Amino acid sequence: MLELKHAAPAAEGEARPEAASGLWVPAATPFRANLAIDFDRYLAHCRKLLDEGAHGLAVLGTTSEANSLDLGERETVLERLVKAGVSPLQLLPGTGTPSIGDTVRLTRHAVALGVRGVLLLPPFYYKNVTDEGLYAYVAEVIRRVGDRRLALYLYNFPQMTTIRWSPVLVGLLTHDFPETVLGLKDSSGDVDYMETLLESYPGFAVFPSSESLLLRGMRKGAAGLISATANTNVAGIRALYDGWQDEDALDLHKKAAAIREAVAPYGWIPGVKAILAAREGTPDWARVRPPLDELSDLQKTDLLTAIEMAGG
Amino acid sequence: MLELKHAAPAAEGEARPEAASGLWVPAATPFRANLAIDFDRYLAHCRKLLDEGAHGLAVLGTTSEANSLDLGERETVLERLVKAGVSPLQLLPGTGTPSIGDTVRLTRHAVALGVRGVLLLPPFYYKNVTDEGLYAYVAEVIRRVGDRRLALYLYNFPQMTTIRWSPVLVGLLTHDFPETVLGLKDSSGDVDYMETLLESYPGFAVFPSSESLLLRGMRKGAAGLISATANTNVAGIRALYDGWQDEDALDLHKKAAAIREAVAPYGWIPGVKAILAAREGTPDWARVRPPLDELSDLQKTDLLTAIEMAGG
Repeated sequence: MLELKHAAPAAEGEARPEAASGLWVPAATPFRANLAIDFDRYLAHCRKLLDEGAHGLAVLGTTSEANSLDLGERETVLERLVKAGVSPLQLLPGTGTPSIGDTVRLTRHAVALGVRGVLLLPPFYYKNVTDEGLYAYVAEVIRRVGDRRLALYLYNFPQMTTIRWSPVLVGLLTHDFPETVLGLKDSSGDVDYMETLLESYPGFAVFPSSESLLLRGMRKGAAGLISATANTNVAGIRALYDGWQDEDALDLHKKAAAIREAVAPYGWIPGVKAILAAREGTPDWARVRPPLDELSDLQKTDLLTAIEMAGG
Repeated sequence: MLELKHAAPAAEGEARPEAASGLWVPAATPFRANLAIDFDRYLAHCRKLLDEGAHGLAVLGTTSEANSLDLGERETVLERLVKAGVSPLQLLPGTGTPSIGDTVRLTRHAVALGVRGVLLLPPFYYKNVTDEGLYAYVAEVIRRVGDRRLALYLYNFPQMTTIRWSPVLVGLLTHDFPETVLGLKDSSGDVDYMETLLESYPGFAVFPSSESLLLRGMRKGAAGLISATANTNVAGIRALYDGWQDEDALDLHKKAAAIREAVAPYGWIPGVKAILAAREGTPDWARVRPPLDELSDLQKTDLLTAIEMAGG
């Protein structure tokens, strides 16, 4: 497998981007009443997140409801972001699907736009798949994309996929594709798993998915954070990221963690969207695509009270 | 929601097909060394299944590795089948994806070809979704397909999706869309679930997914069977289906069940494909797409021995 990266076509003079680090926000996707993407609101939200301190946008992941978008919409989202002036180097889109073919299509499209990298879910239909099967899937995606600019971040979310990128498999992939497999977003919340990766593979860019784990992660060498609740608390989380070695780091941690924990009981996606709806005075923001459910009015009120109590 | 079916455009003079019944085989999909679909082998296999007694083909489901095909391939498979002379009325393709948009695309395409119906997986990315969310998903798919010819069979496979079509939700959907939601394929293997549906909704077409449950199901009013192992034992299962009220039904049941149980430890998809490879003397048949794994040579030998011992 070591030959594959040499077999990839040259990148037409373009250098591979540096590995991502910092606070990358998985931007939520607003929908109109007919469930179409509300691009005006979406682009304004993304611009605001960057203005408020996000290093980049991890778009088209779980929080973005990417798997509820069709393939064409997923491509259009990236095109609209770039057209609106967002630097592709500030984009880390999700491109993983259960099928190699669809994943290659989305990945090629993203790489052609010049994105910083892509987040790769494992093929999430079949269960109890083996590390061998997952390795073969990733290797085939890399081979078919065939572009040295490809920077790949594994997306670990066993609660959704039932599949975990095992530390052994991560080691194999980084060994065989050292210039392509650059990092991992860990949405498992499993601290042992995160720390195993950080200790086993120094330089591999691990992103926890909760600001509650950011301080602990940074102390062990994490690259940064990709967190749903960053949609509503960029400033607080950015302060923690910048100040994790400062005297008041624990205070910043406690404040950010309290706000996050206030959202937890409501579900990250409907919860974050309900907060954005209330803040911007646009009830449409709270809409989600089926099979997710929008919060009820009572839940929205309770959530906003909880956020206020948490100091958010 | 009751208005929706009236709002659908007229079917251009075509009558809605009768609900499916009998033995529908989820045809396995052979791949070439480059993982492309081997259409010659596939079409020959499908023709053979029909010649040997299958009432129809439940293509593009789990056994067919449909979720490992890209969207275009899924459309091409149907087009090639119809072009090869398979009656669309003998086709019950899977068209469910996590996204409403992609699902509508595949479903419209299948309905336009005149298929007997489609098998609908629930949107399988998000977990812990509610019946309300699933209802909204199905209603939106039906609304957007907007074709009275649409006949929809729910595909229940919680081991893969973690989502179950609850009996309450099934009742709501058949109540609100009585001319569209016609049946359910139950791959759960949960006898209580199957019997609850059969007792609660007479006339609703329930297909168990194992010949081991066929006799029990038929006695309670099941519509037929959709079973992976029918790829390798059409004749034996068809005999059981035809003879379930005969004196020797239990013998036919035992024989078919024994052959099925011999495959179980090897995984239905790699197992069925390995049997086809051995029977046809074409090792290529055993190939699967990642993330699945082809059986090892030792497993193949053991499986063939087990099948022989079971009388298959």
